[in-house]
Order: sequence, then C-alpha cells, then structure tokens
Amino acid sequence: MNAFELFNPTKLVFGPDKVQQLGELVKPYGTRVLLVYGGGSIKRSGLYEDVLSQLEGIGASVHELSGIEPNPRLTTVNQGIEICRAENIEFVLAVGGGSVIDAAKAIAAGALYEGDVWDFTVFKAVIQKALPLGTVLTLAATGSEMNGNAVITNWETKQKRAFGSKLVYPKFSILDPKLTYTVPVNQTVNGIVDIMSHVFEQYFSLTTDIPLQERFAESILLTVIENGEIALANGSDYDARANLLLAGTYALNGTLATGVTSDWATHGIEHEVSAIYDIAHGAGLAILFPNWMKYVYKERVGKFVQYAERVWNIDANGKSEEEVALAGIEATRAYFTRIGAPATLGELGINGDQLDRMAEEATQFGPIGNFKKLSKEDVLSILEASL
Amino acid sequence: MNAFELFNPTKLVFGPDKVQQLGELVKPYGTRVLLVYGGGSIKRSGLYEDVLSQLEGIGASVHELSGIEPNPRLTTVNQGIEICRAENIEFVLAVGGGSVIDAAKAIAAGALYEGDVWDFTVFKAVIQKALPLGTVLTLAATGSEMNGNAVITNWETKQKRAFGSKLVYPKFSILDPKLTYTVPVNQTVNGIVDIMSHVFEQYFSLTTDIPLQERFAESILLTVIENGEIALANGSDYDARANLLLAGTYALNGTLATGVTSDWATHGIEHEVSAIYDIAHGAGLAILFPNWMKYVYKERVGKFVQYAERVWNIDANGKSEEEVALAGIEATRAYFTRIGAPATLGELGINGDQLDRMAEEATQFGPIGNFKKLSKEDVLSILEASL
Repeated sequence: MNAFELFNPTKLVFGPDKVQQLGELVKPYGTRVLLVYGGGSIKRSGLYEDVLSQLEGIGASVHELSGIEPNPRLTTVNQGIEICRAENIEFVLAVGGGSVIDAAKAIAAGALYEGDVWDFTVFKAVIQKALPLGTVLTLAATGSEMNGNAVITNWETKQKRAFGSKLVYPKFSILDPKLTYTVPVNQTVNGIVDIMSHVFEQYFSLTTDIPLQERFAESILLTVIENGEIALANGSDYDARANLLLAGTYALNGTLATGVTSDWATHGIEHEVSAIYDIAHGAGLAILFPNWMKYVYKERVGKFVQYAERVWNIDANGKSEEEVALAGIEATRAYFTRIGAPATLGELGINGDQLDRMAEEATQFGPIGNFKKLSKEDVLSILEASL
Repeated sequence: MNAFELFNPTKLVFGPDKVQQLGELVKPYGTRVLLVYGGGSIKRSGLYEDVLSQLEGIGASVHELSGIEPNPRLTTVNQGIEICRAENIEFVLAVGGGSVIDAAKAIAAGALYEGDVWDFTVFKAVIQKALPLGTVLTLAATGSEMNGNAVITNWETKQKRAFGSKLVYPKFSILDPKLTYTVPVNQTVNGIVDIMSHVFEQYFSLTTDIPLQERFAESILLTVIENGEIALANGSDYDARANLLLAGTYALNGTLATGVTSDWATHGIEHEVSAIYDIAHGAGLAILFPNWMKYVYKERVGKFVQYAERVWNIDANGKSEEEVALAGIEATRAYFTRIGAPATLGELGINGDQLDRMAEEATQFGPIGNFKKLSKEDVLSILEASL
C-alpha cells in the first residue's frame, strides 16, 4: 500500500425530499446565489420550483445560469464567472448531474481568479481560492458531488481537460434517489458505465497489498451491476436508485484511491473522443474500456483473474489464467451490451479519420496510465480496436 | 436504505514516518499544545521524542498529560481540562490508541464547557464548542481517529459512557503502520476483535436493501481476519499492519453506518462489564459477541446465513439455514479463540456476582439494540451464557 492523504469535507444529505433542507444548508454561506443547471428537466420534474422556494425561504437573491452542456463548455463556464463578478455572488448552487456540478466548480474557482479558468486545466495555475458551492444531484454517475474534480471542454480547440482542488469540494450535496426516477434509460446506462469505469481506473492498479481497497471496489461493482439492471427495468425502484447513487458517490470520493496508484488512461482517451465528437462520456467509456482491458491485462493477469472470479463469478476450473482473465473482460462487454451501451465508435457514427489526432492529444504530456504506460501508438491501437 | 447524513472532515495522513508532518499539521491551530498520552510505550519507541521535536520545530509551548488509562477515567480527563484552562491550551494532541484519543476528545470538549464533562455522556448537555484536536495513532482498534465518538469511565460510580459530537472529529490523524509494530500480541488481538465488533454492530441490521454497506462491511471483516493473523505471526509485517489500520478506521468512520439502523447492544453490555472489572474492551467483546449472535440470530436468519457464507466461506450445501447461521457464529468464536481472545468471563476471573447490576445498568434508559431489542432479562441471559 502506498502512503496517502484522505480528506473529504463534503456533507452528504441523502434521502427522499432532502431538498427541503436546501435553504438551511445554503444559508451559512450567503444569500447571493448563482443557480447553475442544464436543460429543462429540473423544470419538468418540479425540482426547479422546490429549489427556488427554498432559496426564497432564506431571502436569497438568485441569479441563474442554465443550459450547461453534457460536456460543459469553457464558454458557458465563462458566462457563469461573469455573473459571479457582476453580481457579487457568494454561493454557487449546482442542480443537476456531473456536468452541471463540474461547471459549477469551474465557475466557483474562476470567479476568484484573474486569469483564464482554463489555466487550471493545463497546469498554468493552481486554484488558490474559490467560492463555496453546493449541489442537488439528479444523476448517479460522475461522483463529482463528493470530490474536488471537474472536467470542462474548450470547444474551439476541441480539448477536454480536468482539474482538481480541495477548494472546490461541495460544502454539501443533496442526494434524493427519487430525483433520479425520471433519468432517461440512455443516461441511466451511461451513468452505470461511468461509475464502473471510475472503479476500473482505481482497481486495475499495480499496487500490491491493498485487499481492503480491492474488496471495496468489487463491492461497488457488484452493487452497480445488480442495481443497474433493476433500475433500468423499473426507473422508480427507490432502493435500486439509492444503491446506484451511493455507489456512484463512493466510486470517486477518495475511498478507492487510498494508498493506490490509479490508472486513468481510458478516461484520458475518452476525453479526446468526446472533445471532438461531443458524445456522452459513459458511451465513450463503454466502447473503450473492454478494449483497454484486452490491451493491458497481461501486465498483471492475476488482477484480471481476481476481477473475473469475484465480480463476474467466472468458474476458473479447467481454464488457464489467461482464459479466466479474458472471460472477465468478455463479461464486462456482455454486460455493457446487455444494458444497451455501445460497443464500437462506428455505432456512434465515428470513423477512423481523427484517431491519430486523438492519440496525439491524449499523450501530449507523455505516456498515460499506470497499469501499463501507454504511448501514442498504444492509444492508437486501442482506438483502432474500438472502431 | 434509510435517509442519512455523512460528514467526516478528519484528514488522514497515512504512511511510514508521517509524524514528520506533525508540526505543519498542528501549526494552523496554535502553538499552546496539550500532549496527551498513555504509559511509557511512546517513550520506549522513540515516538515521544519525534513528537516533541516536531512541536519544538513550530515553537510550540507543550504541556503534558500522561498516564491515560486503557479505560480512560473521568478524573484523568478532568486533570486535562484543568491544564487546558490554566495554560490557555489551543490544541489537544493525542498520541496513542483509542483510549488516549477518547480522553483527548473529552478534554477538548470539557475545556470549553463550564459544567461537568460527564454531562455530555448522560444527555444533560450537548457539546457546543471544543478545542481542536489531532492524533498520532499507535493502535489499530477503535476508529476514534476518524470519528466524533468517545467513551470515558467514571470509576467512582463504575459507569462507562459514550458521547459523540461533530465538534470533536480530529482535525487530522497520522497513521503510520510502523508505529504499530511494537503493539503487544494481546493488544493486537483486542484491536482485531474491536474492529470486527464495530463492523458487527452495523452489519447485523434489520435495514433492508443495503447491498453496498453490507459488502463494505464484509470487505473489512475479510481484510481483518486475514491480516490479523499475519500481523500476529509477524508484528513487523508492514502491509498487514497497514491493512489493519485502514480497516480499523473504515470500520467506524461513518461509511458502514450510511443508511443503516445499527445495533450497539453488545458494546453497551461490554461497557458495563469493563466499568466494573476494568477489563480490556476487546477482550469483553470477544467473550460477548458470539453469545449475542446466538441469542439474536433468529430475528433474521438470512443475514446470518449471508455472514456465514460470505465471511467464513461456510458451504451451505445440505445444511438448513439455521445450521449455516450457527456455523458462521461458531466460526467467529473459533477465530477469536485461534488468535488468543478469551471466550468466557471466567477466564478473566469474573464470576456471576455482578451480572444483575450490569444488566440493570445496561438497560437503565430502556431496552438496548435494534437487531433485537434487549430487555434487562435478555441482557442477563447473554451475560449468563458468557460466564
């Protein structure tokens, strides 16, 4: 096990109708609020009115930034930063899924930074301060509700980049499983894949002697695999939705990363795909991850054997280690297909034209990943296998 | 799954020689420090000098309270409170195991309270403020390094009571597995039992649809069972000690309690035994827990079947549910015995004289526990089975 620091000060408030606590949760941070959200779904569901009612209850002055994109854009983030400055915003409230939360984090940090918020994503600057933010989560997926990470896209340069800071952990996140009942099937699928992918990035590690972290990771995978199918069969199954929400949060709240050298190559590659084609992150990950697995599993076959046996219940009897490992990878692909996730870039209308550019961009700072260090050529191979 | 709040702002700093960061960790909170520790073990190990050197490095004015008992006493806590008041202490630093940390929490809260700190344990008062505290952990056991709970003993009235507050979460806890190399075998055993018991209290719940919490709990148990034996065979096995430390922290840092109605009856009963006989908490739990299990398992046999199969790998083939459940309970007792924990109160020289008093005290505020509500008579039955 590696040395590590674990610090996560986000307060989770979990359960039905917890949005009724929103006013009291926001109040300590001020009353000049920027409300950030995506499309019209929170208006259709009635959540928008519940949020406004809570904010009115504490006498808040509310400004709004709506229309956050599924891959949130720098230009949109900059609009939010402008509002914060012009209106002396004291608190940023994200109501939505991971994209909305990520945009809110970028806004919160950018509002108190004189330069371009993009600087944080290209190591030109480090976040020194940020407005406090909170979230009302409407989608089990990114884990952004309980961490300090965010991903934003520069649509002009076709670049999708991440940043992280302890200063943009949400002060609170409200998780009401009922708010996810109306998530469409394709977004539920993408969320399931996203959660599982976050686990993969940390689980497939060369770090040894991490039995607890491994079992925690397997616990999340088993929970998501089972409850994902239940939620897809019945979107209003409270327990399935609750289990997905909690699993999504724990997949990326620091627990699985304790003492572990994680990978994140597949996320890096997917970011290049969605930066150019604006596809859903979860869809890109569903296509890429089994191909990454096939490309790297020989680096430590035993880890993939453990994955196959513990997560997919593959019977190792009479099989070679390699056969067991590959059976686990095939089971992953089969599950993704069974729940309706794409298996090839072609299904999304993406051909091979831009693969070289993606591989180039993904490795612009050097080889990526840790389970196996991937060069541009390695990335290209994985992308080609994904066509 | 129940509704819940999860909030844990303690920063864990985990790894070899992390005590070298102590100075910088303490510094933001002030330089007038009360150093709280137990017996001489931190002097023998050299940790005491490392701690002082770190505190000197930030120009701290250090006052000391040593001799914290294994079941920390109110009288000792009151000495610490006196020092805090007389010396205008700004930060309480606990160096030791759970007892030292619990005492430090009581001191930190009591120093800023005009009444008797015992009030917090008997619901006469709620903690409104507390001095900041931090810890250097030397024993994998109580989880006190990452929660807001503490247990203290009033030796005059023979009462052992707990309190909890968000205000006494340690600001930081330094966990260096190497610092636990010299923990004696019996204390390592007690720590293992304590960690497993914390899991039991939350795992054996009537709350349904908590697959993630259950698997997390099983993950901790499997990790402790395996690494406990390794650490007992070789006290200086870094990975085994590291895995025990991390498991101990996660067993009681809020993770397992999310959305779960937990039990805590066995802890309540054990507190009455050790309040009178001053035995080690872990020893008392080892004696009592399998007897609690046998007394209550029929409330939900399926949960005990799951425990037997997933944790102890009991083969259910050809067995009734009841037989599988009982086999899991027997496996628990067998493991405790194998690692050298006591199985009966008699082994510790305790006879039946005080059982009635213990049962009376344990249920003074009404029936205890949730998996099965235990009356005084129930508690007495479990105690009698433990003789």
